[in-house]
Amino acid sequence: MRTELCERFGIEHPVLGFSPSEQVVAAISRSGGLGVLGCVRYNDPDELDAALTWLDQNTDGRPYGVDVVMPSHEPTEGAAVDLDKLIPPGHRDFVERTLLRLGVPPLGVDESRRAGVLGWLHSVARSHVEVALTHRPRLIANALGPPPADVIAQAHDHGLVVAALAGRADHARSHVAGGVDLVVAQGYEAGGHTGEIASMVLVPEVVDAVDVPVLAAGGIGSGRQIAAALALGARGVWMGSVWLGTAEYQTSAALREALLKAGSSDTVRSRIYSGKPARLLRNRWTDSWDSEEAPRPLPMPLQNLLVAEAHTRLMESGDPTVVPMPVGQIVGRMNEVRPVADVLADLIAEADETLTRLGKLV
Amino acid sequence: MRTELCERFGIEHPVLGFSPSEQVVAAISRSGGLGVLGCVRYNDPDELDAALTWLDQNTDGRPYGVDVVMPSHEPTEGAAVDLDKLIPPGHRDFVERTLLRLGVPPLGVDESRRAGVLGWLHSVARSHVEVALTHRPRLIANALGPPPADVIAQAHDHGLVVAALAGRADHARSHVAGGVDLVVAQGYEAGGHTGEIASMVLVPEVVDAVDVPVLAAGGIGSGRQIAAALALGARGVWMGSVWLGTAEYQTSAALREALLKAGSSDTVRSRIYSGKPARLLRNRWTDSWDSEEAPRPLPMPLQNLLVAEAHTRLMESGDPTVVPMPVGQIVGRMNEVRPVADVLADLIAEADETLTRLGKLV
Repeated sequence: MRTELCERFGIEHPVLGFSPSEQVVAAISRSGGLGVLGCVRYNDPDELDAALTWLDQNTDGRPYGVDVVMPSHEPTEGAAVDLDKLIPPGHRDFVERTLLRLGVPPLGVDESRRAGVLGWLHSVARSHVEVALTHRPRLIANALGPPPADVIAQAHDHGLVVAALAGRADHARSHVAGGVDLVVAQGYEAGGHTGEIASMVLVPEVVDAVDVPVLAAGGIGSGRQIAAALALGARGVWMGSVWLGTAEYQTSAALREALLKAGSSDTVRSRIYSGKPARLLRNRWTDSWDSEEAPRPLPMPLQNLLVAEAHTRLMESGDPTVVPMPVGQIVGRMNEVRPVADVLADLIAEADETLTRLGKLV
Repeated sequence: MRTELCERFGIEHPVLGFSPSEQVVAAISRSGGLGVLGCVRYNDPDELDAALTWLDQNTDGRPYGVDVVMPSHEPTEGAAVDLDKLIPPGHRDFVERTLLRLGVPPLGVDESRRAGVLGWLHSVARSHVEVALTHRPRLIANALGPPPADVIAQAHDHGLVVAALAGRADHARSHVAGGVDLVVAQGYEAGGHTGEIASMVLVPEVVDAVDVPVLAAGGIGSGRQIAAALALGARGVWMGSVWLGTAEYQTSAALREALLKAGSSDTVRSRIYSGKPARLLRNRWTDSWDSEEAPRPLPMPLQNLLVAEAHTRLMESGDPTVVPMPVGQIVGRMNEVRPVADVLADLIAEADETLTRLGKLV
């Protein structure tokens, strides 16, 4: 299975794989896909620099990408300490009460683990771009549409392809007008931040709306789903959730157990993670926010600052029924831990088989 | 494009088309698909009888089907007049106030148009089955899973294929265990009653869960989407919304305008139509139920009785911004009024073209 995307990036398979883990990203690129490193979790630019240096050395010269979270217009924003003051005490009380009720222990003395995700701040996202451009990514993707014009120009000067996620056709149109080279049409079923239109409807709508190649994201976890994405007019796929079930994704036993057990109905789309709607594993923590006494989630970036320490505590609790985890509906297909190379080989084999079967129906 | 479904029903194209309109159903069957008549709107069995007699005479001997809404276990239920007493006065006040605010005129003197949809009552659904079996449908589909065992046995005695809609793989499994011959896997993006799992994820999950043929429903409005459904393992598709945009679907100018104007973002999944989650055209009426003062929708069948008269008034108001209408996200593709035969011919041509394109990617 080859599309123009393969020529464009010099890759074997039209599969872009997003992961916050550099080990996963490297394994995807080494296996013939294009791994894309999620930068949002790097509050410290030096850590991102180290991760990208490692990627440069561990991808056998194959291409990889980076993913940042950057609004196209620079917002007015304060330092984390000022933002903290904007969080209502009632919200803090609810989080604390909920953790107590769920039996989640407090943190130890290491204060550094209390910081929220600062990558959603414009200034931090900009530092991610600056660091990335000192390495050799082939692609920069932005989760919030087109990056600012100067960032696009800089990326193009460095020979990078600029991609942007879109949950609606009109957004995709404005991304391309803003200079984006590649649109990732991400459906409702996707993990993390996501819109309301399902992939089956969204992908052909975006394909028809723009004159650049489109990747399908959301609901892609098998070769049949890759073939379906190509049927809808996508030139390839963007997959995120599926790599959470791979051997290279180093995580806690609790999260592993939760991911392997979850079915496709065990996710929920909610604003509790970041302030914007994001699909998460459904569990006792997410259910708590559906209760009568739960406050409405705060806007981005306040909500994540509110729950940042709670996220660390929930993760460290070792309890698989409370882990705060963005994941798509294809979590239902994640039933055993396997190496990235095996997962990708099976995806491609099933996609090829499906395409051959379809060709024979006419 | 042919699948085993074509042999099974003796049809040219693996496309089942659901419609509440016998004209649309007949046109689908005459054009090589299988039209399926939605029976739920027939409160009077004699009217259904007349519609099926007309279908028998206007389908050129081609097969057609019927769709009922029937729980597998007989519930305790009263007459409509008793049910009416269970509706809280506060709910009635809200509906009346909302209609006033939206500028919707009252009904005239014809009381008969005030009745709700009684087809959701078990006794009425049973009368639909009895009437249908005196005609020559090839298929009986049930929106609420497997019909009661005696109904399945009766249908099988008459040589009918029994189909059931499913929004989850575990439901599909229990449908087949209950004697269903064909599962319609209906995704989140579908119009009317629908679940939370999107078609991209749901279809292959259901295909893997059962050993009977699966149809894909939800988000299918183009040939590329049909090809995608086949890629996901479906043996054909079940389409409903797309026929609302055809010339044979006789409706008001207001509804026509609303359907043609709506984009894929202009739907909402809500309990306000029937008491169970159903996807509707989003407009000033549906938005009213999102306001702070709106009560929680009542359970089925009370909610529809509550809004029955309002639905008639909203439809007759001639205002395209308030029509109460179940429709899927593919409403965004509905941009001109065309005959069923043309719509189906284009669907098949695009599907064939897509399958040919896909076969060449390997």
